[in-house]
Amino acid sequence: MNPRIEILCTGDEVLTGATINTNFSHISQKLGDAGLEVVWGTTVGDDRETLLEAFLRAGQRADAVIVNGGLGPTVDDLSQEMAAKAAGVELVFHADWYVRMEAYFQKRARTMPPNNRKQAMLPDGAELLDNPVGTACGFAVDIGRARFFFTPGVPRELHRMLDEQIIPRLLARFDRPTATRLKRFHSYGIGESRADGLLADLEKMAPDGSLKLGFRAHYPQLETKLTMRGTDADDVARKLAPIEAEVRKRLGNFILAEDERKLEGVVLDVLVARGATLATIETFTGGAIAARLVPLPGAESVCRRSVISRDLKEVGRAVGVDASAMSGEVTVTMAASIAEAARKASGATHALAVLVALDEGADRIELGGTICLAIATADTVATRHARLLGGRDWIRLGATEMGLDCLRRFLQGLPVDERIDFEKV
Amino acid sequence: MNPRIEILCTGDEVLTGATINTNFSHISQKLGDAGLEVVWGTTVGDDRETLLEAFLRAGQRADAVIVNGGLGPTVDDLSQEMAAKAAGVELVFHADWYVRMEAYFQKRARTMPPNNRKQAMLPDGAELLDNPVGTACGFAVDIGRARFFFTPGVPRELHRMLDEQIIPRLLARFDRPTATRLKRFHSYGIGESRADGLLADLEKMAPDGSLKLGFRAHYPQLETKLTMRGTDADDVARKLAPIEAEVRKRLGNFILAEDERKLEGVVLDVLVARGATLATIETFTGGAIAARLVPLPGAESVCRRSVISRDLKEVGRAVGVDASAMSGEVTVTMAASIAEAARKASGATHALAVLVALDEGADRIELGGTICLAIATADTVATRHARLLGGRDWIRLGATEMGLDCLRRFLQGLPVDERIDFEKV
Repeated sequence: MNPRIEILCTGDEVLTGATINTNFSHISQKLGDAGLEVVWGTTVGDDRETLLEAFLRAGQRADAVIVNGGLGPTVDDLSQEMAAKAAGVELVFHADWYVRMEAYFQKRARTMPPNNRKQAMLPDGAELLDNPVGTACGFAVDIGRARFFFTPGVPRELHRMLDEQIIPRLLARFDRPTATRLKRFHSYGIGESRADGLLADLEKMAPDGSLKLGFRAHYPQLETKLTMRGTDADDVARKLAPIEAEVRKRLGNFILAEDERKLEGVVLDVLVARGATLATIETFTGGAIAARLVPLPGAESVCRRSVISRDLKEVGRAVGVDASAMSGEVTVTMAASIAEAARKASGATHALAVLVALDEGADRIELGGTICLAIATADTVATRHARLLGGRDWIRLGATEMGLDCLRRFLQGLPVDERIDFEKV
Repeated sequence: MNPRIEILCTGDEVLTGATINTNFSHISQKLGDAGLEVVWGTTVGDDRETLLEAFLRAGQRADAVIVNGGLGPTVDDLSQEMAAKAAGVELVFHADWYVRMEAYFQKRARTMPPNNRKQAMLPDGAELLDNPVGTACGFAVDIGRARFFFTPGVPRELHRMLDEQIIPRLLARFDRPTATRLKRFHSYGIGESRADGLLADLEKMAPDGSLKLGFRAHYPQLETKLTMRGTDADDVARKLAPIEAEVRKRLGNFILAEDERKLEGVVLDVLVARGATLATIETFTGGAIAARLVPLPGAESVCRRSVISRDLKEVGRAVGVDASAMSGEVTVTMAASIAEAARKASGATHALAVLVALDEGADRIELGGTICLAIATADTVATRHARLLGGRDWIRLGATEMGLDCLRRFLQGLPVDERIDFEKV
């Protein structure tokens, strides 16, 4: 029997839409990844009457409620006060948390303002939930038939409290298998429906129903998520290993990174490991490829030079390719000349040139773009020609991803011209 | 007496957090801008029992409910069915909407799949809400004491239906003044608390209480919003004019754009109007400045060349500044030399160089960066020195915005070195 879990977000900022409620999706995803299903979400403002109504209602129907926001030091932060009222208890002063707050301010060479005292006032009998990165103390308390977990609105404080304090308590409370692992694969070039088809029978590989397969499409990338449950970490790892291997086999060259890793980080790490340096040349992508790589720690020794222009002749001039070679339609030959010249001009070991020719006319969903890209080293040049449809932004995002992903493929010895699902012939 | 308005979002995608619920914030903001306050938000999945419960609950306490999602053709789209059940009526076939859908598919040279028939089944007695850009028919129906407005989950369909169908009906229903206007000012360099102080008495300028002042901080920019209500458009315009002028006076040079306009668009338009061309040089910002300008329509004739490198000597080499001038600490003199050389090398009329020196060590909230930027033309060079604290991302975003905003100020004849609130001495 699944517990009924609800999320209750508080605060005028989210209720009025001034802030997009990313905390809700974070909590729901994290709980889902741990096998805990959220069935109801409520959003209310900083208003005593409404908060009390929301707490009492959720307390009537839920088994557990995650409340987000309203733990701050200001007068419009009402969660502790209304939690006490809903639970029918008094607010009591927690000297231990007060001392923790004082230390927090001291460490930052600041004096604690008097109104922070409010953050140490918690409902009588509340269980404290540690917040190692802020002054808002989380807590758990019973209201009606539900266990309520109160969390801070600041995302990085919420994230840690959820991972370290709340999810373990929920798993223990509802007698879930104690070990869960979320394994993520990031790919570029496979659409969600094809990935769904490729992995259709995957859940059956774990015969005890302990595997959940999910996708999250955020163009141009697709995230494939495996949630594996087991009795302990060893059990999970043992069951997951052959399934991970199967996903790697089926999605193959399209997997660009796993778990917390990102495409640009994978590319940079290979370049760093080889002592390589990089020049990039962009047109319509406008610097978006460079902007993914250049600011990363470690990129200072790798990213030698990036050149951007919407004018092909100007691109040629900037890297030393004769203007006569840069007239007419964009071609992969042109991209190859540009990459080769940029590599020489900058003294880089590798150069990536991504040239995009947009269709004529106003922006529209049918607008297309032709992408000609080349990767040059001292020994070889690899090229890729592709056509994307879907309007200016869609093409710009797709071309940026394709540029970085072809560089990843080149560096990993994989074919750079494997057809992708977004491509039109 | 304010009506009690609720938003009810449906769909497993939003409930599980796979999709961040931007529709909620859009609806709430748009209603707020029209003077209609949202007091409660609910999120539920594609589940009959939960939907019915959510509809009935909202029908007990609200005056109006905006329901989002669940109007599609597939089996998990349940809004019409459960709306009929909650309203105690049958679903009936709307031949007129069915014909509209057929025409929609015909226009796109496609055959309508049979399951789209479901989208023409609406609760008996429902009022149709037109959807000119999709096949999901919106509708309004009474459930309990509330008027329910059902809207599609596709954002562009929702946005039009809300503006054209729903907000006018809500304003009429709750006897609100028929004319409302939202005026927006975008600024860079003023923090929310200072702006709040500068505009503290603004609402009093409209003595009938018809003005609402609000802010939305999305670093590095701040949005200042004025919502003015009146009897008709003329009344609103007449009352708003002196207040707009006052905001322009008080926020002054910090206002970078108004309403739908963006900083990069303002900069590009001035350059286009003058027949000017631009070269940009970046270091740690990594191409983020170029990426804001280069892909815009019209930028192809303006953005001549952008050069990016984390290595100052390489920046110098790329634009033809001697390496000896590029050693030691980053200075504004260095930025000026770079801008001047880049302008000449590219043949552009204007050049912007933004050099950033990051503090040593790991990323942390106290990590700072020194920004030296210069704008060069044939006649003059303007420079700006600033220091930002707040970690790598914060500095990168701030330096990008400062570069573009200083260029805007330069082009508008305003001082480029006016101190901003985010700056540390």
